[in-house]
Amino acid sequence: MNMKINVVKHVLAANDLVATENREVFRKAGILAVNIISSPGSGKTTLLEHTIPALGKVDPSIVVVGDLQTTRDAERVSDKAIQVTQINTGMSCHLYANQIAESLPGLNLEKAGYLFIENVGNLVCPGEFDLGENVKVILLSIPEGDDKVAKYPTVFRVADIILLTKIDLLNSSRYNLQRVYDDINKLNPTAKVIEFSSLTGQGMEAWLEWLQTQKQQSVGAQAKFVKE
Amino acid sequence: MNMKINVVKHVLAANDLVATENREVFRKAGILAVNIISSPGSGKTTLLEHTIPALGKVDPSIVVVGDLQTTRDAERVSDKAIQVTQINTGMSCHLYANQIAESLPGLNLEKAGYLFIENVGNLVCPGEFDLGENVKVILLSIPEGDDKVAKYPTVFRVADIILLTKIDLLNSSRYNLQRVYDDINKLNPTAKVIEFSSLTGQGMEAWLEWLQTQKQQSVGAQAKFVKE
Repeated sequence: MNMKINVVKHVLAANDLVATENREVFRKAGILAVNIISSPGSGKTTLLEHTIPALGKVDPSIVVVGDLQTTRDAERVSDKAIQVTQINTGMSCHLYANQIAESLPGLNLEKAGYLFIENVGNLVCPGEFDLGENVKVILLSIPEGDDKVAKYPTVFRVADIILLTKIDLLNSSRYNLQRVYDDINKLNPTAKVIEFSSLTGQGMEAWLEWLQTQKQQSVGAQAKFVKE
Repeated sequence: MNMKINVVKHVLAANDLVATENREVFRKAGILAVNIISSPGSGKTTLLEHTIPALGKVDPSIVVVGDLQTTRDAERVSDKAIQVTQINTGMSCHLYANQIAESLPGLNLEKAGYLFIENVGNLVCPGEFDLGENVKVILLSIPEGDDKVAKYPTVFRVADIILLTKIDLLNSSRYNLQRVYDDINKLNPTAKVIEFSSLTGQGMEAWLEWLQTQKQQSVGAQAKFVKE
């Protein structure tokens, strides 16, 4: 198995190189690249369906969707984003940086404010593969249970923000919300956490504000860099 | 990347060899080995908490739990099964056959009727790795959405039975149950499907009956094999 471990290390190192190149492309285009990670069915596509129109026409979005098969998620956001690209990963349970790199020449990054990358539904592997994004968003839906942060630490450790989605399904007698906050605090105390519901709109304002701040910081940092 | 593909093929082939050895151990012990696969939070552990006592003392169960970290799931079933083993997979998003093989010498398989293997919560990779089980059980919870069979075909294609869990959360105006059945029928028409709720007990009887039938067929096939 040592050979396998070495190959995996090479794959990760090669991935990181390409991710760095992607990040440079995003910087030049002045776009905020957002890598969205969660289990299947935690609400990634629904989040985008609500977020993209709310960000408005001033700051339009491009979406890259990773899925094993089907173009359903891409279709769902196709009338909201200015451009949508579907990457079918076949058997792979996450996106690689080179899959993003290959899709970039076809995207009008200069015309958009945000690039949302919807990763394959998986709470393990996507956390290990940098795609060159500026921020990582992890979704954890209430029905998944209050023990998932401790059980799947890899992704929560690398999160910039964690959305507790489907918060409208919270049944406080069976779900220990404090446990979730405690577990996040142990793993990743600087991550922002928002209780969110696409159904009721709870948390939407805070989420949009966070995105806009990230965008400003990213563009601000870029401007400073150019001046130097 | 070709080197990686070849190594992955070798890993799969090596895994299958060990899985075949595991299956022979289960056959000799007269135990039904059940590989339980789903996304995080679809109800694998809760299913076991209800199933093991219902199967009764006549046919006791052993549980092997795979998790990245923590022993929480193992603790939850520890007072119900006659033996529980926890395998911490670290960064790996699924169990390998050799992890099961390494745990077998410590298990009293002869004293049990069922060996439940609770895989790492992941709807992609566990479908590719045979552990030597007799049957594969896939859980899909209602809150994950009605499009998941088509989007994650790998695991549904290899399922012997599919439990549509948390059916008590079904809101028929937002969830197209027929779509789920249609997608399963296209991918895997012989898989049994049960609408299930650990909360209300719906589907429990059908699930227990199915398990017992599988057990009888497995033991029956074994007896026939011995006579020949």
